[in-house]
Amino acid sequence: MPLNVTQKLIKSHLLSGEMTPGEEIGLKIDQTLTQDATGTMVMLELEAMGLDRAKTEASAQYVDHNIIQEDSKNPDDHLFLRSATQRFGLYYSRPGNGVSHPVHMQRLAKPGKTLLGSDSHTCANGCMGMLAMGAGGIDVAMAIAGEPFYVKMPKVWGIKLTGELPDWVSAKDVILELLRRHDVKGGINRVIEYYGPGLKQLSAMDRHVIANMGAELGATGTVFPSDEEIKRFLKEQDREEDWIELVADEGASYDIDEEINLSDLEPLIAKPSSPGNVVPVREVAGEPIYQSYIGSSANPGYRDFAIAAEIVKGKQIAEGISFDINPTSRQMLTDLVKESHIASLLQAGARLHQAGCNGCIGMGQAPATGRNSLRTTPRNFPGRSGTREDSVFLCSPETAAASALTGVITDPRTLGMKYPKVKEPRKPTIDVTLLEAPPPMDQAKTVQLQKGPNIASIPEMDALKDTLEVPILLKVGDNISTDEILAGGARVLPYRSNLPEISKFTFEIVDDTYYTRAMNSRDQGGHAIVGGFNYGQGSSREHAALAPRFLGLKVAIVKDFARIHWQNLVNFGILPVTFVHEEDYDKLEQGDVLIFSNVRKALQLRNELHVEVKDKNFSFSVTHALSERQIDIMLKGGLINVVKDRQQMVNA
Amino acid sequence: MPLNVTQKLIKSHLLSGEMTPGEEIGLKIDQTLTQDATGTMVMLELEAMGLDRAKTEASAQYVDHNIIQEDSKNPDDHLFLRSATQRFGLYYSRPGNGVSHPVHMQRLAKPGKTLLGSDSHTCANGCMGMLAMGAGGIDVAMAIAGEPFYVKMPKVWGIKLTGELPDWVSAKDVILELLRRHDVKGGINRVIEYYGPGLKQLSAMDRHVIANMGAELGATGTVFPSDEEIKRFLKEQDREEDWIELVADEGASYDIDEEINLSDLEPLIAKPSSPGNVVPVREVAGEPIYQSYIGSSANPGYRDFAIAAEIVKGKQIAEGISFDINPTSRQMLTDLVKESHIASLLQAGARLHQAGCNGCIGMGQAPATGRNSLRTTPRNFPGRSGTREDSVFLCSPETAAASALTGVITDPRTLGMKYPKVKEPRKPTIDVTLLEAPPPMDQAKTVQLQKGPNIASIPEMDALKDTLEVPILLKVGDNISTDEILAGGARVLPYRSNLPEISKFTFEIVDDTYYTRAMNSRDQGGHAIVGGFNYGQGSSREHAALAPRFLGLKVAIVKDFARIHWQNLVNFGILPVTFVHEEDYDKLEQGDVLIFSNVRKALQLRNELHVEVKDKNFSFSVTHALSERQIDIMLKGGLINVVKDRQQMVNA
Repeated sequence: MPLNVTQKLIKSHLLSGEMTPGEEIGLKIDQTLTQDATGTMVMLELEAMGLDRAKTEASAQYVDHNIIQEDSKNPDDHLFLRSATQRFGLYYSRPGNGVSHPVHMQRLAKPGKTLLGSDSHTCANGCMGMLAMGAGGIDVAMAIAGEPFYVKMPKVWGIKLTGELPDWVSAKDVILELLRRHDVKGGINRVIEYYGPGLKQLSAMDRHVIANMGAELGATGTVFPSDEEIKRFLKEQDREEDWIELVADEGASYDIDEEINLSDLEPLIAKPSSPGNVVPVREVAGEPIYQSYIGSSANPGYRDFAIAAEIVKGKQIAEGISFDINPTSRQMLTDLVKESHIASLLQAGARLHQAGCNGCIGMGQAPATGRNSLRTTPRNFPGRSGTREDSVFLCSPETAAASALTGVITDPRTLGMKYPKVKEPRKPTIDVTLLEAPPPMDQAKTVQLQKGPNIASIPEMDALKDTLEVPILLKVGDNISTDEILAGGARVLPYRSNLPEISKFTFEIVDDTYYTRAMNSRDQGGHAIVGGFNYGQGSSREHAALAPRFLGLKVAIVKDFARIHWQNLVNFGILPVTFVHEEDYDKLEQGDVLIFSNVRKALQLRNELHVEVKDKNFSFSVTHALSERQIDIMLKGGLINVVKDRQQMVNA
Repeated sequence: MPLNVTQKLIKSHLLSGEMTPGEEIGLKIDQTLTQDATGTMVMLELEAMGLDRAKTEASAQYVDHNIIQEDSKNPDDHLFLRSATQRFGLYYSRPGNGVSHPVHMQRLAKPGKTLLGSDSHTCANGCMGMLAMGAGGIDVAMAIAGEPFYVKMPKVWGIKLTGELPDWVSAKDVILELLRRHDVKGGINRVIEYYGPGLKQLSAMDRHVIANMGAELGATGTVFPSDEEIKRFLKEQDREEDWIELVADEGASYDIDEEINLSDLEPLIAKPSSPGNVVPVREVAGEPIYQSYIGSSANPGYRDFAIAAEIVKGKQIAEGISFDINPTSRQMLTDLVKESHIASLLQAGARLHQAGCNGCIGMGQAPATGRNSLRTTPRNFPGRSGTREDSVFLCSPETAAASALTGVITDPRTLGMKYPKVKEPRKPTIDVTLLEAPPPMDQAKTVQLQKGPNIASIPEMDALKDTLEVPILLKVGDNISTDEILAGGARVLPYRSNLPEISKFTFEIVDDTYYTRAMNSRDQGGHAIVGGFNYGQGSSREHAALAPRFLGLKVAIVKDFARIHWQNLVNFGILPVTFVHEEDYDKLEQGDVLIFSNVRKALQLRNELHVEVKDKNFSFSVTHALSERQIDIMLKGGLINVVKDRQQMVNA
C-alpha cells in the first residue's frame, strides 16, 4: 500500500498498537527537545529516575524562556540545567543562543526521525520531514530514558498546495488561512501533511512557520516532505550528510483531503483574542496601533526579519510606536547584522531585544493596556502578552512592518512600494558553539548537579500500600480546574523547579488551610480528596498532580475526571477512582476516614474496590479505568519509579 | 579673583546665598533630566502644581529603567510620560533610545549650563563643562517649574591629571583610583573638578565615565572644562553652535588639591560589595567568573564596546560564561553594528540586550547566586544586581572582555595580545528622532494626560489647619528607616506612579493595621506618629513622606529626624517636630489624642509649640527647626501648593 510521509514516519517508529486512527500507539522517540520553563522539572525527573545517560539519538535542552534574570532564580536554573545536560548526556543551548525550534532545526533536526518536546510548538520541526510532537514534561523524561511515547493514532490531513504566493503574501498567511477555515480545534487528533507543487516556493524556514502553528489548530503534528529544499538547507548548515529523501509514495492517500491555492491568498490577520479569529488585513486596516513586534518561532527565519528591514529601510516608524525586534537566534542575528538589516531596523527606530522567546510567552515587551499590538507570534490568547487587558493581532512580518511605518493596521499592498526581494546570505553563519555537546560517559558520571537555593530534587515516592487508611482532607464540587488545584502566574511559576515550595500554593484558592493539614497528613499515611464531575479540567500542568502527591494525597474519589489530569494522577501514583453510585458522594463528609483493604491485589483482579468509612458503619464502592500498563505504574508508585526499576535492572 | 570652572558655573547661576562652603545657595537651573522610574511622580507633581509649561531651557524625560514590560505597568507608564512631556513642554526619549546620561550628553548638554536630574548619576554630564547634579523628584519638579535649586555651597576639589594612560588602562581605572584613595564618602559636599595636561588624552566620553562615578564618592557634582575636545564632540553631533569655551582662569585655585599621574595607573577593580573596595586586578586574578557584563552610564561610550569587541574578535568566550552586552543608546548601537563590532561580539558568544539601564539597576541579567559577576557598571552594593547573594566586581571594559575570554578574573595586560586601537566611526550616526521635541504651547495645552489603570494623580493637599486634634496612630522606637515606612523592592516599586496603591504598603513591616486605621483617620482630621531618635534614616525616597501624607499623617513628633526624610516631610506638608523634653516620649501612648491650637500663628512667631493630651490632664512642648521658606511651605500644605499658588498668580 502506498504510504504518505506521516504514515512512513509512524510505521518506521511503531513499537506497539495498530495504525488505526483513534487506537493508542507506542512510538520510538529519536530526539527530544526541552526548554528551560519545562526542562528543570524534566531534569529533576531524570534524576529521580536514576537515569545514567540519555537513550535517545540526540536530546537538547534550550534556554530561551526565562532569560530576563530579574533575580537569581533564572541564572541558577541555567546553571542547574547545564550541569544536568552534562550529567545525563544532553546538548545544552545557552541563554542568548535563541529559540529552541529554529536552533534545533538548524543544528540537530534530521529527516525521517521522531522528535518529542516539552513545548507545544515542537511540531515546528515537522518542516524537516520529521514527526515532531509536543508533550508533557514527564513524557519527554520517559522518552529520554528510552521509553516509548504513547499517543492516539492520528488521522492524516493532506493539504495540497497549488499556485504561487502573490507579492506581499508569505508563509504566515498560509497557516492563517488554515486557521481561518478550521479554527483552533480543526486539527485535533490529526497530523497535517502538506504536499503539492506549491511547496517549491516555500523555503525550509517558510515551512517552519506553517508547521509551527499546527499547534494552534490543535494538531498532533505537522509534516512536510524532505525534498531538495531540505537538502539545500542542511547543506547550508554543513549537515548535508543528515539528509535523506522522504516523500509520499506515488498514489498515497490521506484520511482527509484539502487544497490551498496560494495564488488566491491575501494578507491575513488574527484579531484578538484567538489565533482562529482570522480576517483579511484590509478589513481592519486603519485601526491605530501601539506596538509592532517581529520575532518568535512562528516567524523565525532570516527572511522574516530581512523583509521587515527592507520595508522600513531609509524611513522612520510612526511617532509613539514601539517597534520591537526579537531575534530568533544568535546565528541569525549575526547574519542580519552582517547584511546591514539590523542597521536598517535600528535607524528606522526599532528596539532590538536579546534572542529568545521574550514577549511571545509574556516575558517582556508587554503592550499598554487596551492598545493594539501587532505580532508575528503564534498566539494571542487574552493576557498571554503579559498585559491582562491586551489587544493582540497576529500577522506576517510584511503586515507588521507596514503598520509600524503608518501607525495604523496596514495591508502592506497599499504601501505603494515595490515588494522587496530578500536574498539569503550567501554563506550563512554557522555557530558551532550554539549547542554545547555533552561530555563522554565516563566524564559525565562525575558531574554534580548544581542546585541553587530554589532547586529541589523530587522526593522519593513510595509504592502503593496494600491498606490505605486516609481521611478526606478536602471535599470539593464539580469542575475543579487545575488552576484551582495549583495556580499559574508570576507568583507561583518561579517555583516550578522547587516542589516543596510550589506545593505551598496547592488548593490555596479553594481552601487555604489545605497545605498545612496535608503536610500533617504526610507522616500519618496521607489523605484522600473527594470531588464531583469534570475534576481536574483545564491546563495540563503536571504540577497539579505532583504537588498534591508531595503533600500526601493517595487517592482521588470523584464523579468523573478530566482526561489529562487523570493521566497525570496515574503518572504520579495517585489512585484515581470514581463512585460506582454517584449518590455516595453526598454521604461523605470532610474528615471521614476511609479504609481501602487489599488494594494492590484488588486493583489487579478487578475494577471495583470496596471502601469502608471508619466509625460510621457505612461502606461504598469505587471503580477505576486503568489499563494494565497503568496498574503497573500505580502499584510502583508512579512513572518515575517504573523507570527507576528498569534503570536498576539495566545497571545490575 | 581668578575662578575655577565650578566657581564660574555657580557664580553665573547664583540666585541666593553666599559662595562660602557650607552655606545654602539657590541656583538657577537651565536643564533638567528625569528617567522613568522617578519621572512618573515628577510629572504627577507638575500636574498637581498646575504647571502650564516647563520654565527651563531644556528638560528631557528619558525611558531607560523600566523597559522590560512584563505586564502593562511599564508601557502604560511610557504612554503617560509621553503625554505629560507633550503637555508640559519637555523632550521625550522613547524606550529603546538608551540611557539618559549619554543621550542627554549627545543631544542636549551645553557647556556653561546647569543640569538637575532625578537620577544620582546626573553628575555624568559634568564632563561637558556643566554643573550637573542629582536630586529628588520634587526638587526636579520645582526646577522645571522655574524654582531655584537649594544646595550647600560645595568645596571645590581640584584634581590635576598628569602623565599618559598606559596600554590596557582606561578612564574607568582613573575613577576607580580616586575611589581607591578616598572611598565612597570622600566627595561629600565637594565638587570634583579635573584639569591639567592629562585631560588631552581623555575624550568627552572618557570624561563621562569619570564624571559619572563622582556619585560613588558622594560628590555634589563633577566638573570638567569645556575645551577643544568638547568642541570636537559637539561638532560630531552637529551641534558646534552649542559650544562655548569654559576653562579655569589663570591662577585659579581649589579648596582641596590632588594629583593623579595617569602614567602610574594599572587596571583596577572594585571587589564586592562597595565601589570603594578597589584593588589592582592582578590581586584577584584567577578567580572564576560566571558573568562578564559591558554597559551602563559608567562605560557608555562607543569605544567601551568597541575595545571589548576588538579584544574578543575571532575568539570564543570561555564555556559557561554569560557575556552580556547592554548597549547604551540606539545611536551608538547603530554605529557599533555598522563598524562590525557587534558582529565580533556575537560571534565570540555574546548576548546582546536592548539599549537601556538593564542590569545596572537590577532590571535583568542578574547573576547566579554567589557567582562572580564582572561589570563595567558604577555600583556593586549587595543585591543591586537583582540577586540577593551576589558577588559583583566593577572594572573597565578591557578587564571584563579579557576575563570573558579566560573564564577567570584577568588582568588584560596578561592576555599576550597587542592593545587594540579603537577608531571612532568617521561620521557617527546622528539619530534626530531620539528625542521627540515638545509641541508648541497652543498645541501642548490641548494634550490630555494618558493615565493607564495604574497611574493616579496626586490628590489635592490641604493647607495646614490652625487647630489639629489628632490621635497617635503609631508609636515607634529609634532608628525607623524609610524602608520600614515604605519598603522598596519588586512588590512595591511598580506602584510608584499610583499613590493610593503604594500607600497600602505604608508601615506594613512595623504594624500591618496602620494602613486601615490611617485611612479611617483621613476624614476625621488625620493622625500623628510618635517616634524616637534618627527617625526616617536610610533611602531618600520621597514616597515615605508622600504616602503617610496621603493617609492623613499631619504631624510627626520624634526625638530627632534623619536629615533627608525631615526635608521630605516639610516638602509634603507634614509637620516635623521634636520633643523639648525627651522624657515626654515615654508619657505618650498609642491612642492618645493630641491637640495643637493656634498652630499657624505659633509656627510663624516662635519655635516652640504647646501640645495638650486630650482627657489626660497632661501637656508637653515640641519644637521645630524650620526656616522661613520652610514655614511658608508648611502653612501652604507642601511644596506642590507653593508652586501651584505661584502658577495661579502668573496665570491670573
